[in-house]
Amino acid sequence: MKVAIVMGSRSDLPIMEESAVILKQFGLPFEMHVLSAHRSPDELAHFSKTARDDGFCVIIAGAGMAAHLPGVIASNTCVPVIGVPIDASSLGGIDALLAMVQMPPGVPVATVGIGKAGAKNAALLAVQILAGSNIALQEKLENYRDNMKRTVLQADREIKTP
Amino acid sequence: MKVAIVMGSRSDLPIMEESAVILKQFGLPFEMHVLSAHRSPDELAHFSKTARDDGFCVIIAGAGMAAHLPGVIASNTCVPVIGVPIDASSLGGIDALLAMVQMPPGVPVATVGIGKAGAKNAALLAVQILAGSNIALQEKLENYRDNMKRTVLQADREIKTP
Amino acid sequence: MKVAIVMGSRSDLPIMEESAVILKQFGLPFEMHVLSAHRSPDELAHFSKTARDDGFCVIIAGAGMAAHLPGVIASNTCVPVIGVPIDASSLGGIDALLAMVQMPPGVPVATVGIGKAGAKNAALLAVQILAGSNIALQEKLENYRDNMKRTVLQADREIKTP
Amino acid sequence: MKVAIVMGSRSDLPIMEESAVILKQFGLPFEMHVLSAHRSPDELAHFSKTARDDGFCVIIAGAGMAAHLPGVIASNTCVPVIGVPIDASSLGGIDALLAMVQMPPGVPVATVGIGKAGAKNAALLAVQILAGSNIALQEKLENYRDNMKRTVLQADREIKTP
Amino acid sequence: MKVAIVMGSRSDLPIMEESAVILKQFGLPFEMHVLSAHRSPDELAHFSKTARDDGFCVIIAGAGMAAHLPGVIASNTCVPVIGVPIDASSLGGIDALLAMVQMPPGVPVATVGIGKAGAKNAALLAVQILAGSNIALQEKLENYRDNMKRTVLQADREIKTP
Amino acid sequence: MKVAIVMGSRSDLPIMEESAVILKQFGLPFEMHVLSAHRSPDELAHFSKTARDDGFCVIIAGAGMAAHLPGVIASNTCVPVIGVPIDASSLGGIDALLAMVQMPPGVPVATVGIGKAGAKNAALLAVQILAGSNIALQEKLENYRDNMKRTVLQADREIKTP
Amino acid sequence: MKVAIVMGSRSDLPIMEESAVILKQFGLPFEMHVLSAHRSPDELAHFSKTARDDGFCVIIAGAGMAAHLPGVIASNTCVPVIGVPIDASSLGGIDALLAMVQMPPGVPVATVGIGKAGAKNAALLAVQILAGSNIALQEKLENYRDNMKRTVLQADREIKTP
Amino acid sequence: MKVAIVMGSRSDLPIMEESAVILKQFGLPFEMHVLSAHRSPDELAHFSKTARDDGFCVIIAGAGMAAHLPGVIASNTCVPVIGVPIDASSLGGIDALLAMVQMPPGVPVATVGIGKAGAKNAALLAVQILAGSNIALQEKLENYRDNMKRTVLQADREIKTP
Repeated sequence: MKVAIVMGSRSDLPIMEESAVILKQFGLPFEMHVLSAHRSPDELAHFSKTARDDGFCVIIAGAGMAAHLPGVIASNTCVPVIGVPIDASSLGGIDALLAMVQMPPGVPVATVGIGKAGAKNAALLAVQILAGSNIALQEKLENYRDNMKRTVLQADREIKTP
Repeated sequence: MKVAIVMGSRSDLPIMEESAVILKQFGLPFEMHVLSAHRSPDELAHFSKTARDDGFCVIIAGAGMAAHLPGVIASNTCVPVIGVPIDASSLGGIDALLAMVQMPPGVPVATVGIGKAGAKNAALLAVQILAGSNIALQEKLENYRDNMKRTVLQADREIKTP
Repeated sequence: MKVAIVMGSRSDLPIMEESAVILKQFGLPFEMHVLSAHRSPDELAHFSKTARDDGFCVIIAGAGMAAHLPGVIASNTCVPVIGVPIDASSLGGIDALLAMVQMPPGVPVATVGIGKAGAKNAALLAVQILAGSNIALQEKLENYRDNMKRTVLQADREIKTP
Repeated sequence: MKVAIVMGSRSDLPIMEESAVILKQFGLPFEMHVLSAHRSPDELAHFSKTARDDGFCVIIAGAGMAAHLPGVIASNTCVPVIGVPIDASSLGGIDALLAMVQMPPGVPVATVGIGKAGAKNAALLAVQILAGSNIALQEKLENYRDNMKRTVLQADREIKTP
Repeated sequence: MKVAIVMGSRSDLPIMEESAVILKQFGLPFEMHVLSAHRSPDELAHFSKTARDDGFCVIIAGAGMAAHLPGVIASNTCVPVIGVPIDASSLGGIDALLAMVQMPPGVPVATVGIGKAGAKNAALLAVQILAGSNIALQEKLENYRDNMKRTVLQADREIKTP
Repeated sequence: MKVAIVMGSRSDLPIMEESAVILKQFGLPFEMHVLSAHRSPDELAHFSKTARDDGFCVIIAGAGMAAHLPGVIASNTCVPVIGVPIDASSLGGIDALLAMVQMPPGVPVATVGIGKAGAKNAALLAVQILAGSNIALQEKLENYRDNMKRTVLQADREIKTP
Repeated sequence: MKVAIVMGSRSDLPIMEESAVILKQFGLPFEMHVLSAHRSPDELAHFSKTARDDGFCVIIAGAGMAAHLPGVIASNTCVPVIGVPIDASSLGGIDALLAMVQMPPGVPVATVGIGKAGAKNAALLAVQILAGSNIALQEKLENYRDNMKRTVLQADREIKTP
Repeated sequence: MKVAIVMGSRSDLPIMEESAVILKQFGLPFEMHVLSAHRSPDELAHFSKTARDDGFCVIIAGAGMAAHLPGVIASNTCVPVIGVPIDASSLGGIDALLAMVQMPPGVPVATVGIGKAGAKNAALLAVQILAGSNIALQEKLENYRDNMKRTVLQADREIKTP
């Protein structure tokens, strides 16, 4: 029950670390990889094809610009692939978002939001997927949600009287 | 191991049927629901909160315009939610796409492409998620992919000589 | 005759304070709340359903990204809801704008501009709504407009001769 | 307690009739006007300045392209103005939306969605505003919402078993 | 043969000064005004209606956001109006551009580019318009173009050998 | 006092005829030309350089896609150039609009709206430019505006009572 | 000196035939292929890696949506790849354009316009590339350009007198 | 076998130097030029028409805003033209991208990505084009790709164990 965090370039690490932080918090084993759809296509194809046998249950893939990384992985494996669009050009990440989410019928990529918020949500989505057959994870998720709620309610109490 | 296909309005059915066709093809039990984030908020919240206990392992939610449906479901359950943006306004569905994919950190929606291609991919993503603990499903997915490939190669053979 | 200023996250406060400044200036009682559509859905629904009985006549709701906050409030109350899209992602706030303004038929959100200008205008719109049955408020609004005009004319006098 | 429905051109009538249908349904008196910010500026200014004295409590203004109509009305009255962007060019209405919603600080326009859905919501927003001091209207609104919910639940019952 | 440079707010001055610099360079008399379509509508209408009699042959109008300024001026005079969209929101000025250029048929605004480049070009366009009946101005324009060309060719000579 | 209507392709004629109709209505002599920035660059440069000597006082240039036509003309003459973006691709004309209006500093193009409304406004702008030194044209413009206003007020009278 | 025309799906044929027509016109040998980045990744990689040895000097690749086809080919060969974005979703082809043109540094795709105009230009670009070492092709290109010019000038002669 | 790097303004040099670095790395002779489509049209036309005779085999052209430079060059020569859109306005370079890539049928521009990544890829594309008849260049390209791959794999080794 291992997760892969793949990024197209080392410069994507500050974004994709958000995924790692969440996975650690939930105690899920994971590996981080730098693999490029364009600069190391064979290695990426090999990684993708052996992913299930290598024990990966979910693959998180972050990339910017014409972000082909998650789609190329998804074309080589049936393991669920979560795409994180990264704001790496002057277009605010809309290029990466469209290049990920608009996959043609047959090969889905589960796309989340642009940048750090997306990277965090990608990991939480991975946890939710793995929690399907793992009641302990389900409880951790509920606790995580409870904590988020408590933070909101605490902020609400502090802000109420101007 | 049941999937829910939820749509915000009955008029979304021609799009969301694409999901149903795939789930049938893979032999996965599913239910279709019309539930609106804005017109039936209590029923939607109730559906979402009881989804896991009702046996739903993945929820596919399609909506157009300011498409809150998948996000609202996701805020009420830790079952994975897949969002299908629907082209239901004059903006080509970019409104629904952004209103789904740009979820704030903490509550992910696995967003797929706009319209019928997205609805089809949503169901395939659901199958991929459920196949994690089901080798028979994995094999069906591989077969599905093989068939897609064969269709492509057949088209390639037919088109080659102009 | 009380106004609520609700924001999805404490980090939205520097924007939403613009609303508070205006309401104070007009002497309107108001409450500020941090309530999230995604992290505290039950509390938000409860707040919305009891809003009228709690004396709220207008609700101003600011949020960024896939900004569901005003729409979710509006689905739970018939008190007028004013949405303030906040620029909280790399997309300049167009995500929040579309996620608010493109509400499906039946549940309107009165959307204003992105960011601080919008937050200020949201409060002025609230005053205009409440002034319908309050001649004193109408006079304050006319004075406010007169002051704005005077500032413009003063700037015009100072700038005229280059 | 009268509502004005103003449109910039007679060709906007098929959209703005959606507002009229709702106002009739709620039994609210209203007037329809064709007044152009660009072709009849004096008449529009006069209409706007006398709107409150003429008994208008809310003004709904629909226009397409560089849609100045609601903003120009709002600059001449403190009566709440609801803007309906109309898809009247090759840009899908995003031009009209931005030309309405991005009002500078000081003069708000309560903007709703593009086209027919927006026109319908504009009227419902007008009803919500007027219901603040009218319990009968509040009850009608609740009934309207109940009916919407019933339609959804009815569709849900019919769709459930594929 | 006087030009008016009108801006919606004093904060637009750093942009609109680019127009002033050009007009000075060409020796054209001009006046600068701060007049707001929304905060001083009567004064703006009055300015516009008397513009021709006051000796203005071209009006340059710069504004940001839902930029109604040039359109409102144009609706009140047949003197040519040049619109300068200003980047004054989080949307990069596309809001102001569309709110100016997409004028409905009947009342044109001659729109130039966003920001300083646009403000400079607005003044050059004003010179070109006035040069129609003024051979001295035509010669100045040709000289200005010659100087631009010389600057380019000078840069070309300096850059050629890497 | 002659106007040129230039289009990049014969297929643009149904749009650019809107300009011709207006010019005829105002009794202004004009010529129509098909000249392409990309397919007949020399002829276009020659046309542009001799435009003033050939008696053209204003040049209207309509083109679609990467619409270079008005910019290329403007780079070869100081006669005012009005650009009409044409919706000739799948992008709704936003490509042509940006390719015209965002001219670099030094060479302005007076850009109007996309399509037929723009073509009509281009001609009216040409009339306004030429009316600067022609009182008879000024009166025709005022009459034209009066007629527009009358049409609006007539529509207003007919629509008022639902 | 052979060209490949590759498309992601048989449904792209009506667009990509525009490329074939041009290549035939210039007498260039070519092959058409249906190969999908997502449905036949191995076959596509194999095709790309052997392209140069198979005699392909230029590869034209057309695809819609999250159009990875040209980028994936380019990552597997140093033969120049020309990308044709196809309008195959509700977004007008901007998704395919950005997914092609915004390639990360290191692996270029020569992107042309969306749809049929782009497919035609892709073939002309291929001819231009191959003409570098082929004077006969250069002459054919000059003739082609001359014919285009003649068509324009013919249209100009016919349109001139309204 | 010489390459030209043309830019519309000296201020584009920091972007276009990325092209020069690559060409040097591959040992390709090149010239840099500052030539503006709008400020030096004659010199640009002359440069373009004599480009082939002057020994240029590929022309790289970078420009921002309404970026006509590559299209104007392409209209005057059959030498392949590669366009680099530069982010030189408040719109993030989408203006320059559309003004380059959406060329009308007949005159292609091989467009690459916005900014530095695009400038680098433009030079690599030039190398790929010239490598068609140059096996030594093909080997250099393969080495360049191998080095890119090695960098990725090195990053992968270093990042793997968190």
